[in-house]
Amino acid sequence: MSILIKNVLLDNKRVDIFIENNKFAKIDKHIDDIQADKTIDGNNKVILPGFYNLHCHAGMNLLRGYCEDLPLFSWLQKIWQKEATLTAEDIYNGTRLAILEMIKSGTVFFADMYWFHKEIVRAVEEMGIRADVGVCFMDRLSEKERDENFEFISDFAKQKHTRITVSPAPHAIYTCSKELYKECYKSAMDNGVFLQTHLAETETEYNDCIKNNNLTPVEYLDSMGVLNDRTIAAHSVYFTEKDAELFASKQSVAVHNPCSNMKLSSGIFNMPMMKQKGVRVALGTDGCSSNNNLSMIEEMKFATLLSKVGYMKADALTAQEIYNIATFEGATAYNINAGKIEEGRLADCILVDLNNERMTPNYNTVFNMVYSADSSCIDTLICDGRVLMENHHVENEEDIIEIARRYAKK
Amino acid sequence: MSILIKNVLLDNKRVDIFIENNKFAKIDKHIDDIQADKTIDGNNKVILPGFYNLHCHAGMNLLRGYCEDLPLFSWLQKIWQKEATLTAEDIYNGTRLAILEMIKSGTVFFADMYWFHKEIVRAVEEMGIRADVGVCFMDRLSEKERDENFEFISDFAKQKHTRITVSPAPHAIYTCSKELYKECYKSAMDNGVFLQTHLAETETEYNDCIKNNNLTPVEYLDSMGVLNDRTIAAHSVYFTEKDAELFASKQSVAVHNPCSNMKLSSGIFNMPMMKQKGVRVALGTDGCSSNNNLSMIEEMKFATLLSKVGYMKADALTAQEIYNIATFEGATAYNINAGKIEEGRLADCILVDLNNERMTPNYNTVFNMVYSADSSCIDTLICDGRVLMENHHVENEEDIIEIARRYAKK
Repeated sequence: MSILIKNVLLDNKRVDIFIENNKFAKIDKHIDDIQADKTIDGNNKVILPGFYNLHCHAGMNLLRGYCEDLPLFSWLQKIWQKEATLTAEDIYNGTRLAILEMIKSGTVFFADMYWFHKEIVRAVEEMGIRADVGVCFMDRLSEKERDENFEFISDFAKQKHTRITVSPAPHAIYTCSKELYKECYKSAMDNGVFLQTHLAETETEYNDCIKNNNLTPVEYLDSMGVLNDRTIAAHSVYFTEKDAELFASKQSVAVHNPCSNMKLSSGIFNMPMMKQKGVRVALGTDGCSSNNNLSMIEEMKFATLLSKVGYMKADALTAQEIYNIATFEGATAYNINAGKIEEGRLADCILVDLNNERMTPNYNTVFNMVYSADSSCIDTLICDGRVLMENHHVENEEDIIEIARRYAKK
Repeated sequence: MSILIKNVLLDNKRVDIFIENNKFAKIDKHIDDIQADKTIDGNNKVILPGFYNLHCHAGMNLLRGYCEDLPLFSWLQKIWQKEATLTAEDIYNGTRLAILEMIKSGTVFFADMYWFHKEIVRAVEEMGIRADVGVCFMDRLSEKERDENFEFISDFAKQKHTRITVSPAPHAIYTCSKELYKECYKSAMDNGVFLQTHLAETETEYNDCIKNNNLTPVEYLDSMGVLNDRTIAAHSVYFTEKDAELFASKQSVAVHNPCSNMKLSSGIFNMPMMKQKGVRVALGTDGCSSNNNLSMIEEMKFATLLSKVGYMKADALTAQEIYNIATFEGATAYNINAGKIEEGRLADCILVDLNNERMTPNYNTVFNMVYSADSSCIDTLICDGRVLMENHHVENEEDIIEIARRYAKK
């Protein structure tokens, strides 16, 4: 499969772009000597990298707006009760709805963490997006479940799938023992994958960890020897300066989830400190129950505005910084050779409609994407060299929505 | 002009709605005996009130993304330099772009405050939305300019325009004298209109006012006798408990501008205190330079999430509360008999597409509108009984965008 994009804006210059197999093969002022399987008219469109969403629970899309605005414990109880009723088929359908929503808002990759990982892999395979599918671990799993999970991870790794990795995802330090974290870490290292976990999300988690272990959550993980450049730590709100230095030295990735942290009153991610200490930072939406959408465009705006008011500094996090975090830094965290539109990189990209009112005027595309855009601006999405959306329409989207609606009516 | 909307969801019930002239004339399970000039298929759509944006500088849309992320003073200098070059025609075109953007994201009314008020009135008249056009006052205006402004306000009031009011808008306490505020107040009262002003936006404004007058900004306005139920005070960030009590007793309106206050590192509006003291609160986007879009949908989410994390309480501001503020409370602040879909009220409404992925599933439409929706969910907008958008398309939108683009290229 090859694609030729004609007359598209890239860094304020009009170019033609040739995509062959799954890579940007050639970028030039004019490409007239190549026949492609498909040609896309790039007039009045700008090409940008897609977004890399580093923390999500896609299956929860079926619970969007199920209950809201309750005190945390009552809310969690209602969500957990409902979650317990979700079947494998529900998770498959919920994940498809989530992927649809991500494609429509420009996302090409998500790191997921939820039950029924096989169904999640199935949905990702079919819909053409990239993902790291986290296989959930908690102490409460039976030995059999645990063994099956580890087996699935090592079996999947052998496939060397071009778009999908499967990684162990120990849920959090308050649901997983040291031993379980170590086993997960070993599985991640043995299979060349990643370790996803929730970390230092709430003050309670932080205080309990100090009380029980005389260590911060970050120090506690480090004491197990599980921190390295393949650790992907969602939330990372309660970090001391020493924690940030430790994370930076280990090159572990802190995933900022501003909407979720705000909605659940968890706290404010310390972006200025993370920047100062050189921590690798990525961006994620979290699941639909605590957001309630999966738009990385919205998440970028929340991230930068929250830093600006949280640290009372108008340049605490600039548009260009959060844009890099949401694209290149996210891809790089997962060793995906993408996140920039350059020859030789994987062909993950979006075409943004400059005829959209939110992109007008267009003094600076990055400023508009971070502060003004919404999903209606995204015209086309290409992932791994395949067109997944054109004219803001995804094949079969009506069916995916209808099935999700039927679930909710049950 | 009459409109019949068939089979639309209203409060979870399927109804027909008949709009005659500019009012909801009849709402019933089935309306089969009335011939309307236009029939709209409401299947898979929900009808909701439109949004009332109580603080905006629409003409600034031409400056969207012109410069960003600079320290406040450098940023203001660049914006002011650019603003000084805007002509009457620019403001007209910028306001048209702003109104287009507002219609596309479900807004039916905006309170504006900018130069070239006659051009703003012209744009609003043509495009069919409602507005209170604030005529800007500052001490630096000449006596002639000031007189002309007051004359325009009283002349316009005589028209008794159905969609537009024109009100005096003294800019702020640091640019307007007591005498000017009093003159503006007299003009507002004489003409039965409103008084728009910026109030207590930054800590500097608050501290300077204390230093210069030994009064808080709210007390200082009150000392002039200009606070009543027709005072619309944008920002209102630096309020003491006593200020809130004073505002509540005067029934003045505090307009929350969360995106702007976050982006400019102004501070966090004290919503829990405002609620507790019974202050009338409305919502506004502010202008494009400090937001950078005019979406009330986004503004609602920012408002509730900011309150939740700002006051570390997951129910500090619920979806239903901010939804009422963005619709009914906004309309009521301006004595507009709208903001609810009820017989006898003015026909301002939106039809939201339930086939949109962001509205799926739809356990609770208000939860989805506040936490999940974006402009792509808004299918139809009716203002004052006239259809301004259908199928998410506004007549001539391509021309409005093209003209704005040409301005930026200059």
